[in-house]
Amino acid sequence: MKYPKIPLAQTVVQLCKAKNIKHIVLSPGSRNAPLTIGFTHDDFFTCYSIVDERCAAFFALGIAQNIQHPVALVCSSGSALLNYYPAIAEAFYSDIPLVVLSADRPKYLIGIGDGQTINQEDVYKNHILYSANLKLDIKNLLKTNEDEPAIIKSIENKLERFLGIKQEIQDANETEINTALNKAIIKKGPVHINVPFEEPLYETVDNLSVDVTIDDIEKKIKKVDEFIIQECFEDWNNAPKKMVLVGVNQPNAIEQQWLDELAKDDSVVVFTETTSNLHHEAFFPSIDKIIAPLSDDEFKALQPDILITFGGLIVSKKIKAFLRTYKPKHHWHIDEKKANDTFFCLEKHIKQEPNQFFETFLSRITHFVKSDYKPLWRSVKQHRQEAHEAYIKNMPFSDFKVFNTVFKSLPNDSVLQLGNSSTIRYAQLFDLNKTLQVFCNRGTSGIDGSTSTAIGYAVGSKKQTTFITGDLSFFYDSNALWNNYIPKNFRIIVINNQGGGIFRILPGHKNTDNFDNFFETKHDLTAKQLCAMYHFDYHTATNELQVKNKLKTFFDTSDKPKLLEVFTPRTINDEVLINYFKYIK
Amino acid sequence: MKYPKIPLAQTVVQLCKAKNIKHIVLSPGSRNAPLTIGFTHDDFFTCYSIVDERCAAFFALGIAQNIQHPVALVCSSGSALLNYYPAIAEAFYSDIPLVVLSADRPKYLIGIGDGQTINQEDVYKNHILYSANLKLDIKNLLKTNEDEPAIIKSIENKLERFLGIKQEIQDANETEINTALNKAIIKKGPVHINVPFEEPLYETVDNLSVDVTIDDIEKKIKKVDEFIIQECFEDWNNAPKKMVLVGVNQPNAIEQQWLDELAKDDSVVVFTETTSNLHHEAFFPSIDKIIAPLSDDEFKALQPDILITFGGLIVSKKIKAFLRTYKPKHHWHIDEKKANDTFFCLEKHIKQEPNQFFETFLSRITHFVKSDYKPLWRSVKQHRQEAHEAYIKNMPFSDFKVFNTVFKSLPNDSVLQLGNSSTIRYAQLFDLNKTLQVFCNRGTSGIDGSTSTAIGYAVGSKKQTTFITGDLSFFYDSNALWNNYIPKNFRIIVINNQGGGIFRILPGHKNTDNFDNFFETKHDLTAKQLCAMYHFDYHTATNELQVKNKLKTFFDTSDKPKLLEVFTPRTINDEVLINYFKYIK
Repeated sequence: MKYPKIPLAQTVVQLCKAKNIKHIVLSPGSRNAPLTIGFTHDDFFTCYSIVDERCAAFFALGIAQNIQHPVALVCSSGSALLNYYPAIAEAFYSDIPLVVLSADRPKYLIGIGDGQTINQEDVYKNHILYSANLKLDIKNLLKTNEDEPAIIKSIENKLERFLGIKQEIQDANETEINTALNKAIIKKGPVHINVPFEEPLYETVDNLSVDVTIDDIEKKIKKVDEFIIQECFEDWNNAPKKMVLVGVNQPNAIEQQWLDELAKDDSVVVFTETTSNLHHEAFFPSIDKIIAPLSDDEFKALQPDILITFGGLIVSKKIKAFLRTYKPKHHWHIDEKKANDTFFCLEKHIKQEPNQFFETFLSRITHFVKSDYKPLWRSVKQHRQEAHEAYIKNMPFSDFKVFNTVFKSLPNDSVLQLGNSSTIRYAQLFDLNKTLQVFCNRGTSGIDGSTSTAIGYAVGSKKQTTFITGDLSFFYDSNALWNNYIPKNFRIIVINNQGGGIFRILPGHKNTDNFDNFFETKHDLTAKQLCAMYHFDYHTATNELQVKNKLKTFFDTSDKPKLLEVFTPRTINDEVLINYFKYIK
Repeated sequence: MKYPKIPLAQTVVQLCKAKNIKHIVLSPGSRNAPLTIGFTHDDFFTCYSIVDERCAAFFALGIAQNIQHPVALVCSSGSALLNYYPAIAEAFYSDIPLVVLSADRPKYLIGIGDGQTINQEDVYKNHILYSANLKLDIKNLLKTNEDEPAIIKSIENKLERFLGIKQEIQDANETEINTALNKAIIKKGPVHINVPFEEPLYETVDNLSVDVTIDDIEKKIKKVDEFIIQECFEDWNNAPKKMVLVGVNQPNAIEQQWLDELAKDDSVVVFTETTSNLHHEAFFPSIDKIIAPLSDDEFKALQPDILITFGGLIVSKKIKAFLRTYKPKHHWHIDEKKANDTFFCLEKHIKQEPNQFFETFLSRITHFVKSDYKPLWRSVKQHRQEAHEAYIKNMPFSDFKVFNTVFKSLPNDSVLQLGNSSTIRYAQLFDLNKTLQVFCNRGTSGIDGSTSTAIGYAVGSKKQTTFITGDLSFFYDSNALWNNYIPKNFRIIVINNQGGGIFRILPGHKNTDNFDNFFETKHDLTAKQLCAMYHFDYHTATNELQVKNKLKTFFDTSDKPKLLEVFTPRTINDEVLINYFKYIK
């Protein structure tokens, strides 16, 4: 087998292997050649080559979102790693493990006007779990070469032994790499390892010259103090109105028995967001549909005594506004790692996995508090659902109508990736097929890398994946399609309303040139040419019948990935949505 | 006229106006609505709307590269400003003034799980001249509203008067904005102003409620100590071999009289890079052509006693390697702001503009040191030029051949923007038309935003601009074409060699699958579909005759911008170049 000659490159590669980091997303470059050589010559790794580092990073994020284990990104020195930053921030807030391996020049070549050189150390400081700034390998610094005269080698050897530097640097680097990788694995987030290399960069050897030390991952099992559980227990048993609100959550993360347990209790209302991947007949999906039309009195009736949250960030602005105004007496957030005080009334951060907590907590509940809390909201839910159906029946062709048709067409047991921001918000109004696994980049809620993420997820999961997106978000990440790994069964649906439709719903000054240009950002682009360029089957629809017809065969097996672009009437979409909320009251 | 109601937004806009910042590049968003309203309703400003913030920032960089005065970037909260980062780093190293105005949520909404919220403060820390983290406006904090009852207003007024907070925050913010803008103007580089806004964001008023204080820009005229000049003078008069090396430099920056003065002196060799925009018959352009084939003895003969450098970063790797090995006794860098110790022997940083220095220094030189330094290298230059011509005559169709033809075709007095990295390196081998103004993003030498920069420059300068680029760099920045402001006379020439041709020249392991995929990054893309999508006239050529024919009318007036894509044979380009350096010896 071939290895890079530089020991530090061998060390990085071997430690990634030891930590079972298999997926490596590489961008072309010269400074990172030692790493590229190391990863691509070892069959243990699955390597991907993506030129645009912004897409590369979101692609890696998508794979990691699926496998829930770090994916490594490898880039050259210079501005390359800055292009990773949007995905790094998304990973930071969405708790997705990523490892950035940025090649760098040696310190003496930084800040002196050398090409492709920036201040790479700690560059992600605001949004990173750990930054390991490795030191240049002494072996490399001394430039020992097999073919150098024995006298020089002997001086170097003496120097090394006398100073002990080589081993010291090697040890320090190994410790840093171990620390960074372990953090990414345990804490589930992005870490940055900056790796300086001196030329020559392309040399290879047949045998490893390093023998790395692997620091074990210490996973502490967290226990919550008994008195805290006891406190919770007392509050719980005295509360007739309890709300559980679930944000971004991995499919099958919560054991069915705890869901059933919560479902049985009439004093408990479980609000599930689309990205929560939680389903139960007794739960309340499409939160916005329920609470958007509420009056002040109704809000008061909904105000919970206890709010339990788990999962990641919450999409619904309406539930945030509601709970900030009508604060629960107690808010407990259950998460091993962190707790956001989203409603400004966080009382307890229970540092456990939800399953662990439910096991300790729900299993000892012996009786349910008598309550009409859930029955009341069940009837509201029922009413809203009927109104929803009725409104859709008479709805003109619009974004809303398209989402309705599209969501109904998705194949069972497939993956749904949603773009920001209109798309995910519309999705929250529908009760989606319960066999779907649903994802959306809600860490930073950016429009910048959703297509790449969806492709990464599809590659990682091997399940049929459909990505639904607005036009701005789609064109923003158009380079996502510059990717040789897109599965044939990958599907994209672009709802093209010729601009940022969401701005029409916000309180701007609609239908002026100023609004069209600087808020809605009107355009006449279509995805047609990108499909030709990147070998996608292109389909289009401009009315309800066409949408339905196209969808009939859209998910069938095909030789190429497919894209369906649906053009909707820009100027009526906002009215349809605003009237919806009035109608379902 | 309409103004945003939020006083802090008024303050930012008014101070930009006071500092004559006219070009504002906006990306759509809601949190930045107060700034968007402020800038777009005032005819003083020329506003541009660009959706992809990475392109927006490079576009702004291009305008600023031309006007040499700050251009402002305005974006919403969240990951938007991270997409600016590659251009910010480029501006930082290329000394180009940019002002990032990032809208932000108020502090109490950060880190609690609100949407589109990241840690924006100091996010560019490694590559920024100044970060102003503004404070939320108290007026806004108190949410005073015209229609609120008198009693509430009176309480607020009392509070304000009693605490004096409002004025204090307003004053502190004004000072911060003044400082940031003044730094960008004087120091020529990027600054970041983070602006928190509380909802409501879309309200407008008919009159300004702020009266901003404008801190004057104190421009200190820098004088260099007489004894330093005297020292330089003595060394200069005793040195028979003096080299002047000029990096990135604005056209017409150096007065002709000083160029003539340097040109007269036989002990002075002036090496000008393509991006130096300096021309004189007695100077030495295409450095690589001269020094690449030199032997050890010839290098010794070229080793200068004194090296004077000015301008920005140096492209030529060969001159860097030469001067690091054959160090001059004295290296002086002339620049008001900074001096890179590129050759590890910097002796003096003369903190003046080159013209000032030359005026003090060259004007008092009374005699030239007798020397055969320049005559010797003039003969080498002559020989190389003849060999260059001879080689080209017999050269097969290749990247090299295309560059030769293309460079000869460029219209007089037009602007030439070059991509990284092969393109600028090839350009260094030709003596370009002296009426051209030449630019390339050499701050970070990234392939990430060259097209956007070129478009920005064209918009700023209004001169005919041609952008020449390799394929990877072009496709990387494909969203650059999603821009409504591209002048009709803008031209792009893509040299498409189906991958990163530069990697074929580096010491990798060519013609293996591994090399093709992970180094050269082979692809079969063409610019054809992008041209259809973004309304460019598309032209193509695959041999020398076609290239010549297409170029005959390529620069003529047209209804649309044009793109010429030249396909070159991937596998012979590297040989042609390597043989060139052997041949011209």
